[in-house]
Amino acid sequence: MSQTQPIPFGIMLHGAGGHMNSWKHPSGPADASVNLDFYIDTARKAEAAGIRFAFVADGLYINEKSIPHFLNRFEPLTILSALATATRKIGLAGTVSTSYSDPFTVARQFASLDLISGGRAGWNVVTTPLEGSAKNYSRPHPEHALRYEIADEYLQVTQGLWDSWDDDALLRNRDSGQFFDPAKLHALNHKGRFFQVAGPLNISRSPQGQPVIFQAGSSDAGIGLAGKYADAVFTHSPSLDDTRQFLRQVKTSAVAHGRSGDDVKIFPGINPVVAATREEAEAKYQRIRDLLTIDEALAYLGRFFDHHDFSQYDLDAPFPELGEVGRNSFRSTTDRIKADAKARGLTLRQVALEAATPRDQFVGSGEEVADEIIRWIDAGAADGFILGFAVSAEGLDDFIQHVIPVLEARGRYQRELPGHTLRDHLGLPRKQSRYAAAPASQEQVA
Amino acid sequence: MSQTQPIPFGIMLHGAGGHMNSWKHPSGPADASVNLDFYIDTARKAEAAGIRFAFVADGLYINEKSIPHFLNRFEPLTILSALATATRKIGLAGTVSTSYSDPFTVARQFASLDLISGGRAGWNVVTTPLEGSAKNYSRPHPEHALRYEIADEYLQVTQGLWDSWDDDALLRNRDSGQFFDPAKLHALNHKGRFFQVAGPLNISRSPQGQPVIFQAGSSDAGIGLAGKYADAVFTHSPSLDDTRQFLRQVKTSAVAHGRSGDDVKIFPGINPVVAATREEAEAKYQRIRDLLTIDEALAYLGRFFDHHDFSQYDLDAPFPELGEVGRNSFRSTTDRIKADAKARGLTLRQVALEAATPRDQFVGSGEEVADEIIRWIDAGAADGFILGFAVSAEGLDDFIQHVIPVLEARGRYQRELPGHTLRDHLGLPRKQSRYAAAPASQEQVA
Ligand SMILES: Cc1cc2nc3c(=O)[nH]c(=O)nc-3n(C[C@H](O)[C@H](O)[C@H](O)COP(=O)(O)O)c2cc1C
Ligand SMILES: Cc1cc2nc3c(=O)[nH]c(=O)nc-3n(C[C@H](O)[C@H](O)[C@H](O)COP(=O)(O)O)c2cc1C
Repeated sequence: MSQTQPIPFGIMLHGAGGHMNSWKHPSGPADASVNLDFYIDTARKAEAAGIRFAFVADGLYINEKSIPHFLNRFEPLTILSALATATRKIGLAGTVSTSYSDPFTVARQFASLDLISGGRAGWNVVTTPLEGSAKNYSRPHPEHALRYEIADEYLQVTQGLWDSWDDDALLRNRDSGQFFDPAKLHALNHKGRFFQVAGPLNISRSPQGQPVIFQAGSSDAGIGLAGKYADAVFTHSPSLDDTRQFLRQVKTSAVAHGRSGDDVKIFPGINPVVAATREEAEAKYQRIRDLLTIDEALAYLGRFFDHHDFSQYDLDAPFPELGEVGRNSFRSTTDRIKADAKARGLTLRQVALEAATPRDQFVGSGEEVADEIIRWIDAGAADGFILGFAVSAEGLDDFIQHVIPVLEARGRYQRELPGHTLRDHLGLPRKQSRYAAAPASQEQVA
Repeated sequence: MSQTQPIPFGIMLHGAGGHMNSWKHPSGPADASVNLDFYIDTARKAEAAGIRFAFVADGLYINEKSIPHFLNRFEPLTILSALATATRKIGLAGTVSTSYSDPFTVARQFASLDLISGGRAGWNVVTTPLEGSAKNYSRPHPEHALRYEIADEYLQVTQGLWDSWDDDALLRNRDSGQFFDPAKLHALNHKGRFFQVAGPLNISRSPQGQPVIFQAGSSDAGIGLAGKYADAVFTHSPSLDDTRQFLRQVKTSAVAHGRSGDDVKIFPGINPVVAATREEAEAKYQRIRDLLTIDEALAYLGRFFDHHDFSQYDLDAPFPELGEVGRNSFRSTTDRIKADAKARGLTLRQVALEAATPRDQFVGSGEEVADEIIRWIDAGAADGFILGFAVSAEGLDDFIQHVIPVLEARGRYQRELPGHTLRDHLGLPRKQSRYAAAPASQEQVA
């Protein structure tokens, strides 16, 4: 992303927030994840501040140990469609799994959302990690590699269906009586390993050409899928260096698939906690950490250590010596936790609370966080960011109050969105149909 | 339906209208079936007039011979969700097929729509008649009987999932930290012939308890499904007597399934063409008929007669003698057409145009149509009606202008809806959970 371009942001709409006990935070309603007014208010506030898209994650399986406020949440396509008529410009992206859905239906639903919203739809393509999902869908859970093979063919089918109608196929000429030009309607006749889909789709091309494809999966297979199909990638942000390396891998993969590195934008998810000063931000972070009881935090910590029972130790003594405990499962995580506890002289209570409330580099004053954001962009580690506040209500307000004005002052932010579609907001051109006469120099299709 | 109750109406949202060439009618936009503003205006106008629900039909397969404006139309769940935030009270019902979807997803999406709309969601359960749909869904088209067996188990699963959370399961107590009461969360653990679904659903019960179930299929199997599960039935209206007989069959079926006849409401679809006088209404009907070219009408007529080529005859001579032509496929229809042409001395042109623009008993002045509506209700042939105007734009305006005031004057209509949910609008109680302590006298569950 060029340094002269304003930095684009998306915002997670994930009910009360990313923190497992965010529903307890007093800044928002406890029922946020099924509260329409809260979704509308958040989306409108973000839109007014120039945030470019809203992003809805999803899951297909819950049990009693799930994050509480995700036990009950809106389904992505319905809430995004509801937001389409309650907002004007903000992009509307949502998660649907290629392992547990039908491409004809999903192609239709996103195409319909794209028409309804005037070209603001995005689909976050996921393959579904949670094995329990299979128990809700009358079928076995495909293995990791197979899931990505299915996803690849699934995207061939949906993108093919989206090109069923040429842009100028619909005449609707009342005088001649001709509704459409049959030469501009294309059946797909896909016959593949997983899907047989004849088409055509019963909905026309949208203002974007095709809905935006987001991808969220970071394995090699995920990077391959992103390079081949994705317009944007939602990824973790463990560190600037790791994220920059990931960005390069995805862009290299795009080039290997005959696309340009600019065709796929990388959006690390970040979790800013900001305030007027660093001290206040730390106090806010502390309050979020305190949303957890110490028992919940110990249980959370225990999951990394083979469900080790930490309640046997003194909470306020130094973190216990654990020997080989936990080294069989999450070894790199547990080794890091132990080393960090020793280096900083932390008690068990401190370690548990921090583990259950992960923090990233975006905690601080508005100046500090704005600087960090600019640093990542200028280092080529990101094309933009998805804001995944630990606590949605307070997090967005603080970001608008403390970070956006600093970015604006530095000439790195623009509140007024220049275009209308999500592709405009992401700096992507309208998607051309595979049947459109291609200019000689760029004939490849997705 | 008691004579003291106001008569409830729904309205089809089917783009330009029910007539195959309604897109050519000057009263609405030619792109109505993908025009959001047209959908919103229609829904709001209907809502303001006290029409109780909007109803979106659907299809999963098109070809070049499809009704033109259904080649491109919004997908039901997305457009209904968009309308949820653009309207306040009107019910929002839409069609989803049990032959080509997953019960976990569909249960979620309707539950989500129900929460988003404040309890206004209805699902029109169809089994999908069109064989071509299978070609878009990588699987064979199930036979009629099998489709209904699948639908039965599908409804068991979705209604089971909708009862996952008791009404008072969610505590969200910030002081105690208790988000929900585990005793009030129910897994389904359904293991059936077609579906294995563990649950629970990741969304809570809605203001209606469960979304309303519409059913639209009139065979014996369809009537059985309706009697067992449906809250409302959308049906044809060939004549008052036939419709009354159908109503009795469905209510008898409900009783056979341990329910009351009042638990399932019968809504024949009607196609009113009204004006200030009968003559003007006939002229409007004539204009709708004229939306077809004579070639289109001949081809339409030919479909009933084994694709017989009617272009070989003189258009303005009496309807030709056809002998056995067509008696092998749609025999009852073709016999009726021939007899009617002979009795009324019609020309081929007249027969073709009428066949392609079917009319029912609801063409006439506002007084006449209001009388006919009251006659059907008082004869026990309907609990209400779904208005499927041949031309949406003109049809609704005329109905509001000419019919509703007459019904009001006769004390048979109420513009101000008494309740908030679709169940309220249909005179149905809130759906109780199967896990709720049932009063001793009515223990049956759906
Ligand atoms: C940033 C990020 C966001 C994700 N969001 C979702 C989501 O909303 N729903 C979901 O089912 N999976 C989600 N996933 C999971 C991925 O789709 C994928 O199934 C998982 O990461 C395993 O694939 P991988 O090994 O390629 O990363 C997400 C993954 C990442 C990295
Ligand atoms: C009034 C009415 C409306 C219908 N609406 C739809 C619809 O919107 N989409 C659809 O796929 N099928 C629709 N159907 C078809 C039925 O769901 C069913 O598949 C078909 O009528 C064959 O079943 P049957 O023999 O029980 O009538 C409708 C049927 C009737 C009678």
